[in-house]
Amino acid sequence: MTTGVRRRMGVEERRQQLISVALDLFSRRSPDEVSIDDIAAAAGISRPLVYHYFPGKLSLYEAALRRASEELKARFTEPHEGPLGARLLHVMHRFFAHVDEYGPGFSALMRGGPAVSATGSREKEHVSTTNALIDDVRQSAYEQMLAHLGIAEAPPRLELVIRSWISLAESTALIWLDGRRIPREELELQLVHDFAALVAVSATRDEGMADVLRAILKDEPADGPFAELIGRLTSLAS
Amino acid sequence: MTTGVRRRMGVEERRQQLISVALDLFSRRSPDEVSIDDIAAAAGISRPLVYHYFPGKLSLYEAALRRASEELKARFTEPHEGPLGARLLHVMHRFFAHVDEYGPGFSALMRGGPAVSATGSREKEHVSTTNALIDDVRQSAYEQMLAHLGIAEAPPRLELVIRSWISLAESTALIWLDGRRIPREELELQLVHDFAALVAVSATRDEGMADVLRAILKDEPADGPFAELIGRLTSLAS
Repeated sequence: MTTGVRRRMGVEERRQQLISVALDLFSRRSPDEVSIDDIAAAAGISRPLVYHYFPGKLSLYEAALRRASEELKARFTEPHEGPLGARLLHVMHRFFAHVDEYGPGFSALMRGGPAVSATGSREKEHVSTTNALIDDVRQSAYEQMLAHLGIAEAPPRLELVIRSWISLAESTALIWLDGRRIPREELELQLVHDFAALVAVSATRDEGMADVLRAILKDEPADGPFAELIGRLTSLAS
Repeated sequence: MTTGVRRRMGVEERRQQLISVALDLFSRRSPDEVSIDDIAAAAGISRPLVYHYFPGKLSLYEAALRRASEELKARFTEPHEGPLGARLLHVMHRFFAHVDEYGPGFSALMRGGPAVSATGSREKEHVSTTNALIDDVRQSAYEQMLAHLGIAEAPPRLELVIRSWISLAESTALIWLDGRRIPREELELQLVHDFAALVAVSATRDEGMADVLRAILKDEPADGPFAELIGRLTSLAS
């Protein structure tokens, strides 16, 4: 046998290539506007060959979403070193980079996913698959936050503050995507400050939350994001 | 003709009765767990008669959701009198009363709506109807906030703070519904404080937002919610 110039891809390799191509298209346009023909053309293969690897657009969309979810979860990983404010700022920076990269796809997903044409049971399954992937990312973000705070089991008020702040981060990113009228870096820092502010508000009426706030501020250097917030608030008040 | 004991309802009256019955059922259980038979039984009429007024569960669900949306929007209405903190607290109280009343239905809706069995185009239409109703309520909340602040056209940072705070209120209510482990009244006040805190964070780097913060605090009485927050934060810091 001679060495062929065009090597044939293995099944798994081809699947991964199609997921990459689909993720790229689903990110640049609303998933509703991406057809199997678009994906086949971008991958340089025929439409029937796409169907050979994926039964339809829905399963390809789910595979792409799964890859994006795994990628986002990986971006949450931050060494447990240094003050919390700086760690959180690193994570916010990577979160916004992800949102920036997958813009239209991220918006469409968070606004209810693609309005797909499908028969009843497949549609139900798709809705629950999509919701489960989103919940999984949120849960991962929540667990990372707890781990950085060094808390194994969160009391109700801490759980509420962390989970509602995660939703604040999502909505802040979505609003930013709609026109990008505020510099991204400003919002990354703002979300770090928002977290401290929400903890502080809850700490005004709960001793456990006050302990959390003290633990956060304890390691904060004079030039860290939380110290910066306190300095700015003080000068605003005077 | 004699006076009948059982009067027959007119078409619109019957429709409204069915919407009330459906809304009650969709509120107490996840909409997925409510059947047309349940609605017919609760209304005391036959299943075919329900279909005479509504083509299916989906359109009855949409009508019930429309009624709940109108009700919630009406609850946002608050006289433009007195300090902002007190007004906002009244609105939060009525918002949580709504969430309390429509608990499981509110949760199901905000977590992606019922996973309905339907053919493609009707499903698409349903998803967009549901999303449009939710967006309409959010937009109404946003406009009410701007009106209370006396601002006709919001600059980007103010728009972001108000809209992301509205999503914080939604997620706070959803997390509260899941187990109700924190007193409702505490969260109503917390969300008022959260709003002030988010405005303050944004005000640390934008002069326009600092003006908004000053305008909010200007009319605040010594026993108002915002003054309470500042007092508590000060004692926490000492």
